[in-house]
Amino acid sequence: MSLSYESSGVNYDQLDAFKRACQKAAKTTAPLLASHGYAEPANTRGESCYLMEADTHFLAHVEEGLGTKNLVADAVYAQTGKNFYSEISIDTVATIVNDLVTCGALPISVAMHAAVGESAWFTDAKRMEALVEGWAEGCRQAGAVWGGGETPTLRGIVNADAIVLAGSAIGKVEPKSQRITGDVKDGDAIVFLASSGVQTNGLSLCRLIASKLPQGYQTPIGHGDSRTYGEALLAPSVIYVKFVAACQKAGIKLNYVSHVTGHGWRKLMRLDEPFVYEITNPGEEPALFKFLREAGPITLREAYATFNQGIGFAAYVSPDALDATLAAAKASGYTAWHAGTVKKDGDRKAVVIPSLGLEYDGSTLQVR
Amino acid sequence: MSLSYESSGVNYDQLDAFKRACQKAAKTTAPLLASHGYAEPANTRGESCYLMEADTHFLAHVEEGLGTKNLVADAVYAQTGKNFYSEISIDTVATIVNDLVTCGALPISVAMHAAVGESAWFTDAKRMEALVEGWAEGCRQAGAVWGGGETPTLRGIVNADAIVLAGSAIGKVEPKSQRITGDVKDGDAIVFLASSGVQTNGLSLCRLIASKLPQGYQTPIGHGDSRTYGEALLAPSVIYVKFVAACQKAGIKLNYVSHVTGHGWRKLMRLDEPFVYEITNPGEEPALFKFLREAGPITLREAYATFNQGIGFAAYVSPDALDATLAAAKASGYTAWHAGTVKKDGDRKAVVIPSLGLEYDGSTLQVR
Repeated sequence: MSLSYESSGVNYDQLDAFKRACQKAAKTTAPLLASHGYAEPANTRGESCYLMEADTHFLAHVEEGLGTKNLVADAVYAQTGKNFYSEISIDTVATIVNDLVTCGALPISVAMHAAVGESAWFTDAKRMEALVEGWAEGCRQAGAVWGGGETPTLRGIVNADAIVLAGSAIGKVEPKSQRITGDVKDGDAIVFLASSGVQTNGLSLCRLIASKLPQGYQTPIGHGDSRTYGEALLAPSVIYVKFVAACQKAGIKLNYVSHVTGHGWRKLMRLDEPFVYEITNPGEEPALFKFLREAGPITLREAYATFNQGIGFAAYVSPDALDATLAAAKASGYTAWHAGTVKKDGDRKAVVIPSLGLEYDGSTLQVR
Repeated sequence: MSLSYESSGVNYDQLDAFKRACQKAAKTTAPLLASHGYAEPANTRGESCYLMEADTHFLAHVEEGLGTKNLVADAVYAQTGKNFYSEISIDTVATIVNDLVTCGALPISVAMHAAVGESAWFTDAKRMEALVEGWAEGCRQAGAVWGGGETPTLRGIVNADAIVLAGSAIGKVEPKSQRITGDVKDGDAIVFLASSGVQTNGLSLCRLIASKLPQGYQTPIGHGDSRTYGEALLAPSVIYVKFVAACQKAGIKLNYVSHVTGHGWRKLMRLDEPFVYEITNPGEEPALFKFLREAGPITLREAYATFNQGIGFAAYVSPDALDATLAAAKASGYTAWHAGTVKKDGDRKAVVIPSLGLEYDGSTLQVR
């Protein structure tokens, strides 16, 4: 039997019901912005980043967490003595700021939330220092200050050997014209930016797979890649802030961008308005994902609905802006390519990947 | 043997070493603010709220967590069926925004971080809805919008039945003159604002005490208070935003304020500059704290060094501003009184409470 994401214990239906209740209640508090000189833009609840509109700018706020990736680092550390907490810290900053830039805001400040089950977690100086250095490195890559944080001991809530890593960011869109609004049109070009591996999503399933492998995280992934499973999983996430900043600087209008995380490529159709996202050039599937599909086993359909499959970020631009977008990505150090086209097809909403024989209907994604 | 806070498993020394490493690394990222039009004010690292300075305003950022208080709500829920998750949610918002206002910033947006061990946590609709409603209510009391959040499932990190509650806030000080800088002078009046109970600190110790009581959280606290121990612990925290806002509106200069949380009344000497804080009118000790001291037992010295002992917030103002400060507090619904005086005594730093025979030296507080 092949594995699905739900078999790893994450039930999105239960979570999504809570998220919807939160969004409904949160919406009622929007009038409280007025006394601060802000207002809530229409139809932005449920986007990856919360925006507040003033006369001259939008203020942006994101709270995000790493998920369970650090359990992989813990297991690899226990087995090999190799410490990946610097990478884990970069991952945490990445997951926060990559959400923030989806609205066109650049992060100004990033704060850490690191909750342990026992304060003894911090007595391993090597691991503790890697966590600290990685957070600072993530902030540098994001061009944001590390603005404080919180490090509670939560005995009885967090497992004794574990740490919950999360945090928040403040950003700004200024001038307001740089906001990314979802102004997507029939014929827009889809640009993909490469990921470094699984980055921060699908890790519960990755851990389940490790538990079934005789060599666990020490298993070589093969397919021309010399790394072990653990090393490949723990490659630090790419931070996409400099791509968005470079496009803004070059005057390129990003019609929409998607941070490809939970729900895999289904996230490409995050926008409310129905479009068909036709991916004619999905790129070569990285070795890690081939390994995951075989080891699971995981069907191709489930893999693209769960993992980023080599794509961490997608941008939709006018065909006129395609070359400049690719140039801006390359100049700021990213691997990027023209992956496909946004098409209008009445009320149809779908992601289609003809060369892989895959198609995801809009009803398979409910994140708003 | 009497109980201390360390006996409940929280070792501040280990935590503080990590915090200091974070502050050192975070400081190196301050130059990254320049490209956003901000700068880091001098000597603000380690304050309860992170500030960024622009020409016309300060931007403020706080990340904070509830701690272990929800374990009390879980135990009371299991024993009595009485659900306190609305109160717990208010507590979480309170701990965030009460830190934010210490620099004079008013919260604009508050985001939720709610991490569970199993997504099944959300299938208890009554508890889930209380959590949602409480967060919205906390935001209303804080005058801030509920600006999104994150709700991950962290199997293997968070205990199966537990939830980690935390979050972040963005605020602004505008005009800049309303910043609370720590401009304290010999002779300043100390104003105390009442708490509603333990609020959000010392809960690990409170839980340890419950485990030793034959009736646990069902124990009546006595001392003229008809509530059970569980009910008294779960009174929602006071949110002090409206006090600071009222003082700003009335043109009252708050020289310094302290959110009295971890380290109890030692937090009154949070300011770097040495002063002696003489508390001549500590107020009547609430019944809950009398109960805690007897039940522990906890010495008077340990109690005032751990719990808020009835005081959630303290403000230091010029003697000229004392009456107006008390009036502003009363008009916005708070219980407040003139509790003592800030005194200059060379390099001596201490909190002294003569009527209780207590004195805490500056060396007993290392939170920066």
